[in-house]
Amino acid sequence: MGLIVQKFGGTSVGSVERIMNVAERVKDETILGNQVVVVVSAMGKSTDQLVKLAKEISPQPSKREMDMLLTTGEQVSIALLSMALNQKGLEAVSFTGWQAGIVTEPVHGNARITDVRTEAIESQLSHRKVVIVAGFQGITESGEITTLGRGGSDTTAVALAAALKADRCDIYTDVTGVYTTDPRYIKGARQLKSISYDEMLELANLGAGVLHPRAVEFAKNYQVRLEVRSSMEKIEGTIIEEEATMEQNLVVRGVAFEDQITKVTVLGLANSLTSLSTIFTTLAQHHINVDIIIQSTTEAGAANLSFSIKTEDLMETLKVLEDHKELLGYEQIDAENQLSKVSIVGSGMISNPGVAARMFEVLASNQIQVKMVSTSEIKVSAVIEEENMLKAVQALHNAFELSSVTE
Amino acid sequence: MGLIVQKFGGTSVGSVERIMNVAERVKDETILGNQVVVVVSAMGKSTDQLVKLAKEISPQPSKREMDMLLTTGEQVSIALLSMALNQKGLEAVSFTGWQAGIVTEPVHGNARITDVRTEAIESQLSHRKVVIVAGFQGITESGEITTLGRGGSDTTAVALAAALKADRCDIYTDVTGVYTTDPRYIKGARQLKSISYDEMLELANLGAGVLHPRAVEFAKNYQVRLEVRSSMEKIEGTIIEEEATMEQNLVVRGVAFEDQITKVTVLGLANSLTSLSTIFTTLAQHHINVDIIIQSTTEAGAANLSFSIKTEDLMETLKVLEDHKELLGYEQIDAENQLSKVSIVGSGMISNPGVAARMFEVLASNQIQVKMVSTSEIKVSAVIEEENMLKAVQALHNAFELSSVTE
Repeated sequence: MGLIVQKFGGTSVGSVERIMNVAERVKDETILGNQVVVVVSAMGKSTDQLVKLAKEISPQPSKREMDMLLTTGEQVSIALLSMALNQKGLEAVSFTGWQAGIVTEPVHGNARITDVRTEAIESQLSHRKVVIVAGFQGITESGEITTLGRGGSDTTAVALAAALKADRCDIYTDVTGVYTTDPRYIKGARQLKSISYDEMLELANLGAGVLHPRAVEFAKNYQVRLEVRSSMEKIEGTIIEEEATMEQNLVVRGVAFEDQITKVTVLGLANSLTSLSTIFTTLAQHHINVDIIIQSTTEAGAANLSFSIKTEDLMETLKVLEDHKELLGYEQIDAENQLSKVSIVGSGMISNPGVAARMFEVLASNQIQVKMVSTSEIKVSAVIEEENMLKAVQALHNAFELSSVTE
Repeated sequence: MGLIVQKFGGTSVGSVERIMNVAERVKDETILGNQVVVVVSAMGKSTDQLVKLAKEISPQPSKREMDMLLTTGEQVSIALLSMALNQKGLEAVSFTGWQAGIVTEPVHGNARITDVRTEAIESQLSHRKVVIVAGFQGITESGEITTLGRGGSDTTAVALAAALKADRCDIYTDVTGVYTTDPRYIKGARQLKSISYDEMLELANLGAGVLHPRAVEFAKNYQVRLEVRSSMEKIEGTIIEEEATMEQNLVVRGVAFEDQITKVTVLGLANSLTSLSTIFTTLAQHHINVDIIIQSTTEAGAANLSFSIKTEDLMETLKVLEDHKELLGYEQIDAENQLSKVSIVGSGMISNPGVAARMFEVLASNQIQVKMVSTSEIKVSAVIEEENMLKAVQALHNAFELSSVTE
């Protein structure tokens, strides 16, 4: 008999019918003799509706009160799922984040989990009950209700799996698993049987939105065996686990892509030593995520700096740079938008030199110009024009033989 | 500077606009220099919607999970009201029932408050914040979320006022105060300046639904000065307080009435000694409220028993009696419906004999037949035909000069 943590997102509990379907999935595991802890998100669009209500009252509602407001969404889901399980003949008990012992740092809107006190859950499991936990929420040591920010329910599930030493953490989604690339756009995209935490992390960060990177990182740190599965179809998903247990014959395991990228270039920075940190500190304070950064020095000793951002942050970025022009002492700013980022990911790259070269070769042979490059041990990213994005992804997917190679 | 507890019901917080109006009412008190604790119910019909969702999943959802589900309603209200107060420039902090220290017995759906731990609220008040508390909900010693049942938010407000030793507990409703009788139906109905706890208790129990009897009883036990006020109009309400401070010149203070009453008669009960307790214990187990009870013994030694119930409970009552026929050993059951109950209430009755006689005289002179009678020290109730109800109330209101006498 094992202990399984299951996580179901907002779409999976979006209606009474779907909640009954989730109950069926939970029952499947109990029939196999497993103990089950279920983590659920708020129903479908209910969070959006609550946000809308709040915005009608205040353009910038207090973060504490937003947490108070939004955490009701998951509380509704856990109660309804518990009723659905009872209806299917299972004994179940629902817990809010604080009842489940999810302790977080004292931050509203985006708190990190600092502790999981599992006594209450373990006591209910020992009474052979299914335990349902509200995702996305926790409590501070002083009793304040907090939320975990984006991907919060994934993080709740992984944290619980780690604390309870669960045998598996199943993340149920509206896709059937992790793919070599997005099957909606790319021919030959294929579901992976398994993938390492690091590879998943790169894919997750690159916008393959199946699993939140925070949850993957948590799983990696605590060696939680994750499985991404479909909440609708009863088929095998993708297992995310430590490298060692997997075959290594695939150098590249997936191709990720993201559009709506803008490259900002700051020309003639007077003193690059302090201006660099000033620029990025200031942008971070304005919650602007900077991705790739390239710096070059001119003959005159000034520096040119380029960095990529999401296009939606462009106006804010320009305003921040403008506001600090005197401090930064640059000459000019250029912005190039309608760009995209294409990345190949695979832990095999570490031991395979020439993978990046092969990528550039493929792009060049397709007449695609590379604007920026960024590499990690298991990833190469290239910023290219948006109009070439899908062509590039398809060419890379073909070139690295992702559709045919067996794992 | 005083401490005021304000309570706003579901209608008062039923929309964004109304929540802003409530915030205005709260602000009024702070401008007077008062500390304010606000208790709110769930928005308008939101509780009904949650109940509907639950019923779609399970015809008889677990009471624990219903509490988990329904308590989200007030949590939404407190967050939104807190945002609205911020928007009006007030510092505010919202608390769920458990955060506010509302401790209840371990019963779901209808728990009684056993303790109020005010440290958290007092700490926030000392920081000059308005404290907003979710009504209707509490927590057991073991951390289970409970609800207080009907009138729960009124009870929360009174319990907090008692525990915090508040100067006043203002119950904001959609009426302007407590009336001598229902002004929608009876000419000359007049708002009372003040009324005693006992009188209010009788009126509350008799269906003058301004305030829940449980809350009035709580207020009486802890000597909390209540005021019933309009959430819409800025006018004086009705104060509910101890007898001594009030004038006593009014013998009868109000006329209450209730339709949809049925009189059930059980004929030929063999052994009245045990059958009486058996009947009422069994009915209570089925949550059927019995109001007036009349018993008479026949010459043969058998007993005839009559009692009044709400007509909606008739089918269930007949079924229960039928199921226990052998045990009870009666001969026959009669039921007479389309009845109503009319009651006069006033603490002056204790020292004024003949008030009941005057009531029967008024009813008789209007050709109204009395089917059952029940009296307490400050109340006389008569069960009459439903079609005569309003005629009887108007006649009694006139006869006891309730519209003209000054308080």
